[in-house]
Amino acid sequence: MENLDENIESNVGLMEREESTMSSVLSFQIEKEILLNGLKIVERATAQKGLQPVLANILIEAESKTKLNLYATDFDLTIITSVEAQVSGLGKITLPAKKLLDIVSRLNDGIINFELNNTTMTITSGKSKFEILGISANEFPQIEYVTDEDSEVDIDLKPFVIGIKEAGFAAASYESNNNLLSGVVCDINKNVLEIASTDGNRLARARKIVSNKDDKTIKLILPAKVLQEFLKISYFMEDDSIKLYTKNNKIMIKSDNITMISNLMNGQYPQYNKLIPQSLPKEARINVSKMISALERVSTMVNEKTSIVKLSFTQNSLSLMADTPESGNSEDQIDITYSGEDILIAFNYKYLLDCFKNIDSENMIICMNTNLSATIIKPDNEEDFIYLIMPVQIR
Amino acid sequence: MENLDENIESNVGLMEREESTMSSVLSFQIEKEILLNGLKIVERATAQKGLQPVLANILIEAESKTKLNLYATDFDLTIITSVEAQVSGLGKITLPAKKLLDIVSRLNDGIINFELNNTTMTITSGKSKFEILGISANEFPQIEYVTDEDSEVDIDLKPFVIGIKEAGFAAASYESNNNLLSGVVCDINKNVLEIASTDGNRLARARKIVSNKDDKTIKLILPAKVLQEFLKISYFMEDDSIKLYTKNNKIMIKSDNITMISNLMNGQYPQYNKLIPQSLPKEARINVSKMISALERVSTMVNEKTSIVKLSFTQNSLSLMADTPESGNSEDQIDITYSGEDILIAFNYKYLLDCFKNIDSENMIICMNTNLSATIIKPDNEEDFIYLIMPVQIR
Repeated sequence: MENLDENIESNVGLMEREESTMSSVLSFQIEKEILLNGLKIVERATAQKGLQPVLANILIEAESKTKLNLYATDFDLTIITSVEAQVSGLGKITLPAKKLLDIVSRLNDGIINFELNNTTMTITSGKSKFEILGISANEFPQIEYVTDEDSEVDIDLKPFVIGIKEAGFAAASYESNNNLLSGVVCDINKNVLEIASTDGNRLARARKIVSNKDDKTIKLILPAKVLQEFLKISYFMEDDSIKLYTKNNKIMIKSDNITMISNLMNGQYPQYNKLIPQSLPKEARINVSKMISALERVSTMVNEKTSIVKLSFTQNSLSLMADTPESGNSEDQIDITYSGEDILIAFNYKYLLDCFKNIDSENMIICMNTNLSATIIKPDNEEDFIYLIMPVQIR
Repeated sequence: MENLDENIESNVGLMEREESTMSSVLSFQIEKEILLNGLKIVERATAQKGLQPVLANILIEAESKTKLNLYATDFDLTIITSVEAQVSGLGKITLPAKKLLDIVSRLNDGIINFELNNTTMTITSGKSKFEILGISANEFPQIEYVTDEDSEVDIDLKPFVIGIKEAGFAAASYESNNNLLSGVVCDINKNVLEIASTDGNRLARARKIVSNKDDKTIKLILPAKVLQEFLKISYFMEDDSIKLYTKNNKIMIKSDNITMISNLMNGQYPQYNKLIPQSLPKEARINVSKMISALERVSTMVNEKTSIVKLSFTQNSLSLMADTPESGNSEDQIDITYSGEDILIAFNYKYLLDCFKNIDSENMIICMNTNLSATIIKPDNEEDFIYLIMPVQIR
């Protein structure tokens, strides 16, 4: 018992010494631009219109002398980032995200001082001074990290980002959130990353070569909405690689400075690879930007109820046509490389445009069979990115 | 009678010769950019959601070999412009403004061909072809020109435009369309143009020296909405001067290539010049951009119900303050030139910002009397532009 008492005393002594250099209340200094970046990253996960006011706030936590952690969550998505700061008092508080961003973005460049008094944060910079009422950090939801080391997959960031851009957009719209088709498949198999999405009418699939540290294999379905947020945040990630951790239907995506936590989607995703025909008899080679211009012109006269544009492929020529009974019709023609049988085929022009605008190549290949069977669109380069689209029946 | 018959015969002969070089249906060729500009000018006067479909259309009229007239009207405002074209068949038709703009803007640069068949216009350019259904020109409202030569006022365009920008924004919002305060006063007296507007809480007045051909005197109240459209269109006006014609509560503003016709507002506009104090005891000289930055920072914590910001003027210093009971407060300070008595005065910050952003001068002067009396804001230069604003009582 004596020993224990001694220990307690010496600990108290240690704490007092620590406090002598540190203030007893949360206080820190930070460069405007650094804080602004950090706030912009986590702000995406706040819930501005929720029932819990604290979810519209960002949790600011100083737990070391040189670093600040920023947290935001709307329960579906949690984002955490760390920013460099000079901390003179440890502690934490939540502050309204929108107000804080408004203030920080309007301050002059330079150092901003933060000092907490109960739940009121005093912010000063030059001759500008603000007092904002926060909400106690105790009311902020507990962050559930996913830290199962066994599940760790360590892959390149860049191909992951490009893959999502190329193949994440074909998912069903966000409104149908419980539908598995509103998710995007991320399938990592040794050094091949496959990203795919489909809404039932069209399908996008990209395959990328990645360095995968331990040759792990993992197949996940992430909400498309979360991946869209990930894309925006990825610009701020300082590493070349990210780590994925999964457990109990949760995923944590971690770079050196940013952590995202999201729910995973569960269920049997359609076996989309079986739907993709291996070879198709008719192949047309088309300049992407000319095709986009022609399609945009022709679509001015598209029937808004059906969005149908007809494509007529003949020897080295493609005609595009649209019409609306009460408004009129449109037609355009571009030169292509095509030597197959003549074919007249119709599509929803929006699906075509979505796809064409994602093709980062001068030319593309459209591969067809009949005007009722799955059509493949792919870039005319080495990239393994394909797009499958079902034609619309022409009446 | 013989003579008359002869005349008729020879006239018929002339018409036949005319027709031999001209098609009997409306047809013309026009440079894409020229047509696009013309459509953008008149489009502003179309009524997209009205009960009369023809008001969503632009009337296209070819009445000479080299010129096309474009017309649009929503009854409140009529805009007419002329564009160069190569006309091979005279005639007229109305075509849907939105569709036409969509099509023309997406065509490749170069010549566009138009040819009418009944009410269907065929548009071709390169390999692009469109057929749009129009509405007969007979259904388009008769344009009522205002051509009373006696009423003609011929003034410089540029000071007119600047005057409207400086002093047209303080009018009451457009929703209160029957209210005279939603109008802007244009008072031309020999070579002085005065533009003024007020919504009852604030007042803006600009005076400009203009060349006024016949030293005419005229005082008009124009709908603020019409003048905002005029501002946008003025960029396309090719002359240095415009002509104003008025008759029966209508005004026609005419430049070489563009004509606008609008209703005038009628009634006894407040005698605003009597409200403007000639001299005020307290004068502060303030850097405009520093003031805008400080005001924008402080306004982050403004009470959204009142929009009140407090200004405290002391010796060469101005403090700005705002607060919202449940959110917090803000304060900023800027150095100014001020040697008057200390004064604490409050304003709706939106009115201040509207004004400051219109001041095209490095510094401005704020002239005050008491914190309940009219305050004057004006640029610190030769421009005769003043802004009057009523303070808000501080509780």
